[in-house]
Amino acid sequence: MHQVETVMSKIIGVLGGGQLGKMLFEAGSPTNVSYVFLEKTNDCPASLVCSNQVLGSLQDSDQINVLASKADVFTYEIEHVNVNALASLEQQGKSVFPKSSVLSIIQDKGLQKEFYAKNQVDTLDFTLATTDDLQEKVVAWSDDRFVLKHRKGGYDGKGVQLLDKQKFETLVAAQDEGLQSEYGYVIEKLAKDAIEVSVIVAVAQDGSTTTYPPCEMVFDPRSNLMDYLIAPSSLSDDTNQQCEAIALQAVKAFDSPGLFAVELFVEAGGGVYVNEIAPRPHNSGHHTIESCYTSQYEQLNRILLGQPLGSTALVKPAATCNIVGPRDVNGTYQLANLDEVLTIEGVYIHMYGKTSTSPDRKLGHFTVLADTREEVVYKMEKVKGLLEIVAE
Amino acid sequence: MHQVETVMSKIIGVLGGGQLGKMLFEAGSPTNVSYVFLEKTNDCPASLVCSNQVLGSLQDSDQINVLASKADVFTYEIEHVNVNALASLEQQGKSVFPKSSVLSIIQDKGLQKEFYAKNQVDTLDFTLATTDDLQEKVVAWSDDRFVLKHRKGGYDGKGVQLLDKQKFETLVAAQDEGLQSEYGYVIEKLAKDAIEVSVIVAVAQDGSTTTYPPCEMVFDPRSNLMDYLIAPSSLSDDTNQQCEAIALQAVKAFDSPGLFAVELFVEAGGGVYVNEIAPRPHNSGHHTIESCYTSQYEQLNRILLGQPLGSTALVKPAATCNIVGPRDVNGTYQLANLDEVLTIEGVYIHMYGKTSTSPDRKLGHFTVLADTREEVVYKMEKVKGLLEIVAE
Repeated sequence: MHQVETVMSKIIGVLGGGQLGKMLFEAGSPTNVSYVFLEKTNDCPASLVCSNQVLGSLQDSDQINVLASKADVFTYEIEHVNVNALASLEQQGKSVFPKSSVLSIIQDKGLQKEFYAKNQVDTLDFTLATTDDLQEKVVAWSDDRFVLKHRKGGYDGKGVQLLDKQKFETLVAAQDEGLQSEYGYVIEKLAKDAIEVSVIVAVAQDGSTTTYPPCEMVFDPRSNLMDYLIAPSSLSDDTNQQCEAIALQAVKAFDSPGLFAVELFVEAGGGVYVNEIAPRPHNSGHHTIESCYTSQYEQLNRILLGQPLGSTALVKPAATCNIVGPRDVNGTYQLANLDEVLTIEGVYIHMYGKTSTSPDRKLGHFTVLADTREEVVYKMEKVKGLLEIVAE
Repeated sequence: MHQVETVMSKIIGVLGGGQLGKMLFEAGSPTNVSYVFLEKTNDCPASLVCSNQVLGSLQDSDQINVLASKADVFTYEIEHVNVNALASLEQQGKSVFPKSSVLSIIQDKGLQKEFYAKNQVDTLDFTLATTDDLQEKVVAWSDDRFVLKHRKGGYDGKGVQLLDKQKFETLVAAQDEGLQSEYGYVIEKLAKDAIEVSVIVAVAQDGSTTTYPPCEMVFDPRSNLMDYLIAPSSLSDDTNQQCEAIALQAVKAFDSPGLFAVELFVEAGGGVYVNEIAPRPHNSGHHTIESCYTSQYEQLNRILLGQPLGSTALVKPAATCNIVGPRDVNGTYQLANLDEVLTIEGVYIHMYGKTSTSPDRKLGHFTVLADTREEVVYKMEKVKGLLEIVAE
């Protein structure tokens, strides 16, 4: 008796048509996985590699139902989708991974923090506040410096502020719009001398799990902005294992198949805390396309198709850096010095097919592979010094 | 001053829409390379990943002209195309890589052998024959055993026979159709105790060149059919270097940019001979998708776009095996035991999207990666024992 499986048996429905969708579809191409996706614009990154698009907003339950009629299993490549519509698909017996119950917790940073606390997952101290009691809660907060997060609607650093009490009072006096959040706030303790890492966790439909090696976020010491992501991390083996264990514990608490990126703070003193979780492929897993036996995208395809998980071992050390629109360029653009970059061994360019740039817009990323972490850093600096977005 | 290049500046026109086209387009997807291809059926493998198809025969000069109007630079993924139509594109100033002059030599195995002889490229002794003088030439041939090849129209082993003089006379008496070739024959010396390897050679538009590590063809000792392809080869470093040098010499003689697969015989006694050259991506380079810094497909894209060549270094030892339709299955099919195969680290399945199988039809291939050649062989045997094409 053979166990018989077709490679192309199920159609995957995806909410969102951004670059994560594009890379998911690219990972399925060698085995001809079929996809249909929902996105409101028809020149989105995913449309470059998939012609089966439902045109509509990720909030529109009617269009989500149209998507539902065209596929067998569902996922989302962005958190900002209509979670009630997903829950109603589940009630109709459709499979959505991660489950809508996961997304409704993760969409609200307040619920997310409470979820970790309830499940004994180490996370930094916090308190929740509404617009009405925010000032009172800040005054009562134990430390002078703290992080203020909007519970909902933040994205890519928006809705997250590092403040001290004096700065906060200035913002209150100025009626700053960063203090306008209808869903309320999380006031959170600041991590001390922390390294930030991310652990991608995969949970298959049969409940089996695996974790990727921790990927470290390296910050520019001058600008304090995230500079690049590198794996393996600079942490000890013990601490890496601790990160994987806590990430796995946090994801298991959600009790759902799916691919999850767990962002962690690792304090110099030894504490490891879950910051937040993205229930989808993540920037910190882009490097896995070239550096791991199984990329995060291939892994998510396997999860959705009910296949076994693949090896997450790192074949080579790797780093990833975003290609971001510079402050002074708007509109159509070109990649300067590309030819020189292409002569460097182990450099992989990914462009998201966005036809115009604007300040800070994510236009693509590149990954570098090398034999050692030191060589990776050297090459990363070299490519960063060369590659440039310029007006066309 | 910056050197400015767009990633997406040129459209590549491809004659042929088979699996090689599909994999070429997959390699261009991360940087959004644009393609248009010509193929007579619209359910061909390339159509799964590229919607810009010109529907027509590869012999039809009108349709080749339609293709020409839609792209900037041209290549072919199969040798059986209208070479005169390509030459006329070149006369109109279009770039075709490899040049049509290369293809007109390679399409005719007689011209190809004469070309190597003329250019002092080591190749096995041969003589040319027509249908009229074939019997006379065979009688006069020095060895009892020899290889008989049709000068034109052979493909995937068709049109190539290993014969001895007695067997030949039997075929003559039976008026065997293997002896009907309007373009004539090559009678060729048999390689002695030879290992067969393939070296992929890349030539950029600026004339720079690079070679991939030799890939060895391993034959099944019982059936004498090609079993799998493995890199690195089992040859000594010296012999590998000799293979790369001869492959490069042969390709340089053609004086054209392009990607070339050079098949070589390496005799136990030390002789290295060029067998034949394919002016396109090749089976023996499939493994480069996962095993080399730059795949053969990415390399061809770079050549066509006028970019610098990428590193051909092997990141991990690898082997590739075709997934071929079994003798007893026709029609729609499934891949049996896929799930078990997917649990093995470093196994990559590529299916060509062919909806039905027939005996010996190439439906896909798989590549295995491992840390050593021995481990690669072990895994290869394991996967071969599991993966099976069965009727749906």
